[in-house]
Amino acid sequence: MSAFSDIDKLAISTLRLLSVDQVEKANSGHPGAPLGLAPAAHVIWRQMRMNPKQPDWINRDRFVLSNGHSVALLYSLLHLFGYDYSIEDLKQFRQYGSKCPGHPESDSPGIDITTGPLGQGVSNAVGLAIAQANLAATYNKPDYTLSDSFTYVFLGDGCLQEGVSSEASSLAGHLQLGNLICFYDDNQITIDGNTNVSFTEDVCMRYEAYGWEVLHVENGNEDLDAILNALEQAKKSKDKPTLIKMTTTIGYGSLNAGSHSVHGSPLKPDDVKQLKKKFGFNPDESFVVPQEVYDFYNKTVIQPGMKACEEWHKTFEGYCSTYPELGSELKRRLAYELPEGWEKALPTFTPKDSAVATRKLSEGVLQAIHSYLPELMGGSADLTSSNLTRWKEAVDFQPPSTGLGDYSGKYIRYGVREHGMGAIMNGIAAFGAGYRPYGGTFLNFVSYASGAVRLSALSGHPVIWVATHDSIGLGEDGPTHQPIETLAHFRAMPNMQVWRPADGNEVSAAYLASLTKKSTPSIIALSRQNLPQLEGSSIEKASKGGYVLQDVANADITLVSTGSEVSISVDAAKVLAKKNIKARVVSLPDFYTFDQQSEEYQLSVFPDGAPIMSIEVLATSGWAKYAHESFGLDRFGASGKASDLFKAFEFTPEGIAKRAEKTVAFYKNQQVISPLHKPF
Amino acid sequence: MSAFSDIDKLAISTLRLLSVDQVEKANSGHPGAPLGLAPAAHVIWRQMRMNPKQPDWINRDRFVLSNGHSVALLYSLLHLFGYDYSIEDLKQFRQYGSKCPGHPESDSPGIDITTGPLGQGVSNAVGLAIAQANLAATYNKPDYTLSDSFTYVFLGDGCLQEGVSSEASSLAGHLQLGNLICFYDDNQITIDGNTNVSFTEDVCMRYEAYGWEVLHVENGNEDLDAILNALEQAKKSKDKPTLIKMTTTIGYGSLNAGSHSVHGSPLKPDDVKQLKKKFGFNPDESFVVPQEVYDFYNKTVIQPGMKACEEWHKTFEGYCSTYPELGSELKRRLAYELPEGWEKALPTFTPKDSAVATRKLSEGVLQAIHSYLPELMGGSADLTSSNLTRWKEAVDFQPPSTGLGDYSGKYIRYGVREHGMGAIMNGIAAFGAGYRPYGGTFLNFVSYASGAVRLSALSGHPVIWVATHDSIGLGEDGPTHQPIETLAHFRAMPNMQVWRPADGNEVSAAYLASLTKKSTPSIIALSRQNLPQLEGSSIEKASKGGYVLQDVANADITLVSTGSEVSISVDAAKVLAKKNIKARVVSLPDFYTFDQQSEEYQLSVFPDGAPIMSIEVLATSGWAKYAHESFGLDRFGASGKASDLFKAFEFTPEGIAKRAEKTVAFYKNQQVISPLHKPF
Ligand SMILES: [Ca+2]
Ligand SMILES: [Ca+2]
Repeated sequence: MSAFSDIDKLAISTLRLLSVDQVEKANSGHPGAPLGLAPAAHVIWRQMRMNPKQPDWINRDRFVLSNGHSVALLYSLLHLFGYDYSIEDLKQFRQYGSKCPGHPESDSPGIDITTGPLGQGVSNAVGLAIAQANLAATYNKPDYTLSDSFTYVFLGDGCLQEGVSSEASSLAGHLQLGNLICFYDDNQITIDGNTNVSFTEDVCMRYEAYGWEVLHVENGNEDLDAILNALEQAKKSKDKPTLIKMTTTIGYGSLNAGSHSVHGSPLKPDDVKQLKKKFGFNPDESFVVPQEVYDFYNKTVIQPGMKACEEWHKTFEGYCSTYPELGSELKRRLAYELPEGWEKALPTFTPKDSAVATRKLSEGVLQAIHSYLPELMGGSADLTSSNLTRWKEAVDFQPPSTGLGDYSGKYIRYGVREHGMGAIMNGIAAFGAGYRPYGGTFLNFVSYASGAVRLSALSGHPVIWVATHDSIGLGEDGPTHQPIETLAHFRAMPNMQVWRPADGNEVSAAYLASLTKKSTPSIIALSRQNLPQLEGSSIEKASKGGYVLQDVANADITLVSTGSEVSISVDAAKVLAKKNIKARVVSLPDFYTFDQQSEEYQLSVFPDGAPIMSIEVLATSGWAKYAHESFGLDRFGASGKASDLFKAFEFTPEGIAKRAEKTVAFYKNQQVISPLHKPF
Repeated sequence: MSAFSDIDKLAISTLRLLSVDQVEKANSGHPGAPLGLAPAAHVIWRQMRMNPKQPDWINRDRFVLSNGHSVALLYSLLHLFGYDYSIEDLKQFRQYGSKCPGHPESDSPGIDITTGPLGQGVSNAVGLAIAQANLAATYNKPDYTLSDSFTYVFLGDGCLQEGVSSEASSLAGHLQLGNLICFYDDNQITIDGNTNVSFTEDVCMRYEAYGWEVLHVENGNEDLDAILNALEQAKKSKDKPTLIKMTTTIGYGSLNAGSHSVHGSPLKPDDVKQLKKKFGFNPDESFVVPQEVYDFYNKTVIQPGMKACEEWHKTFEGYCSTYPELGSELKRRLAYELPEGWEKALPTFTPKDSAVATRKLSEGVLQAIHSYLPELMGGSADLTSSNLTRWKEAVDFQPPSTGLGDYSGKYIRYGVREHGMGAIMNGIAAFGAGYRPYGGTFLNFVSYASGAVRLSALSGHPVIWVATHDSIGLGEDGPTHQPIETLAHFRAMPNMQVWRPADGNEVSAAYLASLTKKSTPSIIALSRQNLPQLEGSSIEKASKGGYVLQDVANADITLVSTGSEVSISVDAAKVLAKKNIKARVVSLPDFYTFDQQSEEYQLSVFPDGAPIMSIEVLATSGWAKYAHESFGLDRFGASGKASDLFKAFEFTPEGIAKRAEKTVAFYKNQQVISPLHKPF
């Protein structure tokens, strides 16, 4: 006997038509996938745990629409399931300023993950599943289950073709994430037409190779029981993520069903009419929701969900009495607050302390703060011993059966999967419970993850990249590994901190700023080579993003620099002093944070009156915001000893001084105003 | 009976020790993989077709070291096989200015592909294999075989974990590239330790799922016959690429064999000594090559290779008489010359022509030039109908058995695999025979391929990205799809053209410049929305990278702009004229090309005397090189109609004029000099 009846069919038709109507009204969007996926969406959502009045409840099930172009379906669901979306909102689909943009955006109510760029959503979902497993292992007790939610994903052919999903899926299999259930919309169509033009691999076999449970629903258009059976089997698969391949027809019900013409353009008006007729709706009406559909979802999902949420809160109260320490820790985390005074653990340094590579100083910070911040989830893309991202006592996040760690572990072995790591970190951050993921790789290879980094910034996930080997200072590995354009790239990205600390105090400041900002990601660029502890640096000053390291009255020039070039600039100032040129030295470890300071403060760092010259052994692009002239490296690097390279490219006190002299001469008879002054 | 004898063992020991000696001398590098891989290298190279005196012979076999950190092994091979590497060169391994940098660089003799960034090499190899298949299908005749070479690849665990290799491998399976043979160094070790910490998938099963032939050599350390048998079987597999999993011991022979400690650091001196003893060499000598090893390779490979090359040239002479047209076409291509007068086919426009999206104009260019340029290999990452990258008569590059095209086809269906596409294009370009690959995607998703784009620039592969939907002008898809930082990123990359043409003439110029430069890649950023044909534009002027579109005597301001903002700036100049502000308008479609013009020309475009304001609806970073002030979009975009978004962000004639007025007022009493003047 079927678990489904007429009301299910009516609900599914409503979902389909509400989605089509949005696309028609906007005259823009993707009707095909919602038509094919509505049945699965119904079956999944009908059994999901959620509370539309408390969308961020930590033990809700998560839903990720990895094929984000199907977003009209998601808005239909959110409306019907009681989230804050009115029919009027749906009518504003894809209009400027509306609550219903063209792809899911995580600042909209009930949307867990921003998607659209293909391959990201399913990879984010791996992060959600990791966070859930970690939360459960950390806080659940035999008598209290605080976390046992699932993560459901819709994904299409495009998501499966993207390498980022391969990386994340391989790791998900290794990690045996039984809480992750993915529905693959096997509709045999992509924009270029039939998938047989480029995508003939055996997806199921590939996922089996990754260690996933793989199931197949042959008729995803109509066979609700088959979808439900697969779903139930997936939930039972406790030590494997599940891929349910669901064969569907894109644009199901449309006259052009099964063709790529229904993928990305509105249907023709006649087609919409026949579609409505076919599903038993009035062809002349739009945005219609039968009351019994509202009632059905209210009764089967919303009311039970609200009740479950209420009970969870009661359980949590009990938990807090029984386990007061863990309880208050979790309470703090759920409020997204850091523990009071944690920042006192940050190491400080004086010029007497020895020269140390900033990657090593970063290791010291992690070692010092990890015990205060259980929300830290670290890792590296197979460069742990180079990135120095693992504190001594760290336990690996691993399936217990491997004997290599357990799910309460906080250190993730990402493998050589930078893009996957970036997307997974986004998912961990998106889970809630204050999770603060960081991941290590060489600065140059953060670029491999550009797609995910951009979504961190757009969605405001405050993930941290521990990006070591930050210049030609990495030496012999050569130009394939030496970043040039990397900082310019990420500094040009909105809502992105790009720290390049010069010494121990600045490394501590970089972490302080990265961890206290709640919706801005960071890249912390760190040196392979040793750097001296600077006279004049402090956590407090560096926390402003930029500050005067060495001042001098009536300066002839300001030298502004970051990271490994700051101490060389200090020495350059000495060379200049011998030539009676007075140079101030400014350290500017993060543009983003500096730009948030008051205009008065900024002008005190970069005042009028003398030219400002930047020094950074990377591309000069972007520096003109602060400096009149820039000394940088607008070419690729070379293989050789770091010291030989710095000499060859003249990043020496003398090389800097030479250019500073020329700059002073150039501006001699000009009125010099600070680049910070702007007409608009 | 074994096909191998003592001389083979001696040669392998020589390879191993020569590699270890390089690392020891440099005190930097990776000894582990060369020790494990020397036997396979020997077996493969012993049967490879090559001519060290003519390293670019088109019908040579290719060898790609995808695990590029094993490069010491490659230098050992190149030395022993007669390429231009002396023992003295090997002693300079990893020193600044040496011929033997820390990773393979393609401008070194005998090195086909720059590698090091993991996952790229094997993906480039897919491009090499595509190009070979295309060359063979295009020029081979029943009586003349001009191309029948193989591409051999070494790759390690890291390459297999990277998503880019997943993308390229899936496509290689679809394309049935029987000329591609990959040796997977299954040594169970990565930097983080045993692969079981993060990489427990079944690689063989995954490659079977991709449609590859998969073989296994159980003892890659010693079993030369097994390696040879697998190799021979792979060569027989005509319609499948082959993955040979070769189980080896990292650092074979070292006291720390099998441990990650031998991966990336020199061996201890004692270890080197015992290693040399173990292989029958004098422990106190370094860089030793027994004469019989030189003789062996000379006899078995070098002499036969030179002979084969000579014969090939004779064959090609015969071909040129029998098929004079094809023969001279191929001759031209081998000389890396474009056909005379091809550029006359480029479309030109006048202001009377109608407004057209630049992506559509790009389609017109491809349509117009493709018949002149058989070296063009096009494609798109599943956005053919959006990128408009396919000329009407194009045949798809597909295995004939699919019925969808054949190997002489020039249009590649890449699937949703931007990074794979970028790496494959690099391989196609690296193959030689003048191949000029281009690939389409949305500008925002070129970032997914950053790792490959960087290697295009570093290696000088002149690939072309047809990057459409280049701003918020794409409209409703919203901020997940709208580039902001993208142009700043790629403009900061050395050796990279980033074209953003404003009309039809400029689109033609972008292709002209991209195709005539032989070692600089291009991104051509194109609009989704229609743009008018400009008064004052021409192919000739735009080919300079930047030019004065509209001049005016005694200008109060210069407006400089690109792409869709140029025509709005022209209208802004009209608004300003009504307020008695005289504005020049400059179009600057490509910074890189403009920077190559004479100083005099550059100063004629950006002269002293009046402020220069840039207008571009993307991040402002990088513009200060040319402009005193910049109007841009330093935030993420939004979902909405393009016209609504341009209005909301004030990229309108009035919005530009307002800021221009402020700029003029700001600089009123200042002496204004061009930003092009530099003190150093
Ligand atoms: Ca599909
Ligand atoms: Ca390995």
